Amino acid sequence: MREIEVNRDGHLVFGGADTVKLAEEYGTPLYVVDENYIVERCREIKSAFMDKYPNATAVYASKALQTIDVCRIVTREGLGLDTVSGGEIYAALKAGADPQKMVFHGNNKTKEEIKFALENNIGRFVVDNLYELVLVNKTAAELEKTASIQIRITPGVDSHTHKFISTGNIDSKFGISLKKEDRNEVIKYALDAANIDLKGFHFHVGSQLMDNEAHLMAMDIILGLVKDVREELGFVTKELNLGGGFGVRYVDGEETVRLEDFTDGMMGKINRFCEENGFELPMVYIEPGRWIVGNAGITLYTVGSIKTIPDIKTYVAVDGGMPDNPRPILYQAEYESVVANKAASKANKTVSVVGKCCESGDVLIEKTELAEDLESGDILCVFTTGAYNYSMASNYNRIPRPAMVMLKDGKARLSVRRETWEDLILREI
Amino acid sequence: MREIEVNRDGHLVFGGADTVKLAEEYGTPLYVVDENYIVERCREIKSAFMDKYPNATAVYASKALQTIDVCRIVTREGLGLDTVSGGEIYAALKAGADPQKMVFHGNNKTKEEIKFALENNIGRFVVDNLYELVLVNKTAAELEKTASIQIRITPGVDSHTHKFISTGNIDSKFGISLKKEDRNEVIKYALDAANIDLKGFHFHVGSQLMDNEAHLMAMDIILGLVKDVREELGFVTKELNLGGGFGVRYVDGEETVRLEDFTDGMMGKINRFCEENGFELPMVYIEPGRWIVGNAGITLYTVGSIKTIPDIKTYVAVDGGMPDNPRPILYQAEYESVVANKAASKANKTVSVVGKCCESGDVLIEKTELAEDLESGDILCVFTTGAYNYSMASNYNRIPRPAMVMLKDGKARLSVRRETWEDLILREI
Repeated sequence: MREIEVNRDGHLVFGGADTVKLAEEYGTPLYVVDENYIVERCREIKSAFMDKYPNATAVYASKALQTIDVCRIVTREGLGLDTVSGGEIYAALKAGADPQKMVFHGNNKTKEEIKFALENNIGRFVVDNLYELVLVNKTAAELEKTASIQIRITPGVDSHTHKFISTGNIDSKFGISLKKEDRNEVIKYALDAANIDLKGFHFHVGSQLMDNEAHLMAMDIILGLVKDVREELGFVTKELNLGGGFGVRYVDGEETVRLEDFTDGMMGKINRFCEENGFELPMVYIEPGRWIVGNAGITLYTVGSIKTIPDIKTYVAVDGGMPDNPRPILYQAEYESVVANKAASKANKTVSVVGKCCESGDVLIEKTELAEDLESGDILCVFTTGAYNYSMASNYNRIPRPAMVMLKDGKARLSVRRETWEDLILREI
Repeated sequence: MREIEVNRDGHLVFGGADTVKLAEEYGTPLYVVDENYIVERCREIKSAFMDKYPNATAVYASKALQTIDVCRIVTREGLGLDTVSGGEIYAALKAGADPQKMVFHGNNKTKEEIKFALENNIGRFVVDNLYELVLVNKTAAELEKTASIQIRITPGVDSHTHKFISTGNIDSKFGISLKKEDRNEVIKYALDAANIDLKGFHFHVGSQLMDNEAHLMAMDIILGLVKDVREELGFVTKELNLGGGFGVRYVDGEETVRLEDFTDGMMGKINRFCEENGFELPMVYIEPGRWIVGNAGITLYTVGSIKTIPDIKTYVAVDGGMPDNPRPILYQAEYESVVANKAASKANKTVSVVGKCCESGDVLIEKTELAEDLESGDILCVFTTGAYNYSMASNYNRIPRPAMVMLKDGKARLSVRRETWEDLILREI
């Protein structure tokens, strides 16, 4: 979450806008995203990484929040886009993103998706496994194209994060094992394949990490690989993709981690490695997603029923919940919140914030303190919902997905229109 | 899951149809639903409950799988519909369901939803709390209508089920506490309210229960309440809604529980209670959802990458996953599966079935045995996906939601068309 700003009316201000007025104008639940914040974070990536180091580039891991609007903003700021499906590539192209600056991820890209990516000259395929490598080569041959690829390596590092979002272990659905015969089989295939241009390697150690320990351990392992494959296969790595996983501050007590806290250490290792071993500096990619948009977003809800079970708990129900934010039920994720129209009130009322789904697990915040004068009809703001909310939303209980407004210098524009009940039956025959 | 049927081609047959041909014709991932099975289950509900007991009725808990098609089938079979949002009511009405046989649930119905339900003469509101009761009465008064209601009671029974889908505990976001002053405040308000017609009480003890213990415990508690409120307030209960939660068989080793295993015991208690205490038999509602559709559905996927990590695990990736079936990552739900085009093969290859999402937790089946001759391009069938798959689906990773075909006597018709990449950006400006 970011620092809380309150105006003279006692209303929460976000991105320069009065959140209570936004709720009145656009209705709730409402995703609110601050363009200025996204721009700031992109510029920090440029100054702290892309401009600081030669051959350093960044692609936005758009699965965190992929709207046409956000793709446009990030593209305008000079970042590329990391995409994970045909649908994401399709939308990114519609947003005018440069295909050459796009990276295509995934553990099981379909033939249709690979074809679409090749036809649209997507810059890099991050190839996950041998099956996929063969399929990419074959499809590229059919289209008389060459696919530029990075091979995803499983570095075998435990990222100490939540099991579900840890991806660097040796037992992983992602990537190729470091075992010599495994990786060399894949690398050799890539080097021999007529329609593959092998650029280098990719790794990703996990998500929402708050220190660089796992990244640094993985870096050493990958640099060892770079050295080994030159010796063993004569392949000189031209690109290294360090993935993402750079964490953001969700709740009070968590620290804000700067991008340099992750990247400087890794870049130092790469530089030293190249000097000592006589490599030219490779092109280095990073893939920040949540780090760019997590704290760019909030969600505004209207408070409905408030129910106190004596000696147990007060339940405060809002007009959204797990359909617009499944992270609490998926990952036991924690959030901060404030009563937007009573942001100056003393927050000493202990409550559970729950959603409106017919599902006991639809609890947004297990325990928090809200305004002492909280009542039904109030507007509740939940912070740090920019990442993995819109992109993970469902229509469970036939609840329409919220609208999204984008703020620029405090001025709001509709970025995603609210889903309607009509929308929900459009595909049903 | 149901018994496996294999045809002469070694293909899995479901609902009388060759599943491999369905996958060829409609593509994958594909939800397949068997109308005959739904009809059978509805008829079992009629013979084992509605026709067996006087004043017994059933409403389908449509949140399990609410398509226009399924609403029509269940309506034609004489069941009412349990709905949990304005969106569900809207779709049920579009399907031609009788509003008088509809029940409207939820812990936080919005004013807009309540108005819509009243305007459309929805038969019963299951009122969750005092705030909502006041809102329903006020809205009904504005429209010059009367809302017929059942009050949801929290029976305080631990249903021994997964925490997230247990709803009967005293600490629950649902319903009114049994404490005398709490429940009497609400009941008195309902009796005095000019635009409320209080019919009786509702309880729900949890989901996917495999025995009737929790239901019977709750039944005793509710009957105690029925007696108490007659004494204390002179209110004679005319309706009792026993909720749902009747479990289905997901995996080998689980038993198939018959509806009577749940309902007969409860009906016995109600009958004895009424006789002993001089009550007329109330109208009794049940709300089966998963019990009707769970095993009516399967999902067909195409196998893509197959990756063996030596000495650890073989990952089999399919072209869907957590976006079309989030139950494994949400509840650690277990499923059975079979290679549809090799259904006669010996199943002795131990694998993990994973989805195509860029998410480590996107694992459909942690450990299962598949055909020894499994290869990429095969069709994988996952069983018992009729409930809480389509209704909980998301577009995470911009993955379009699958099509759904409905089988009748083995003949297929498109029931929900496949989502397109274009669909996914329709609301984005």
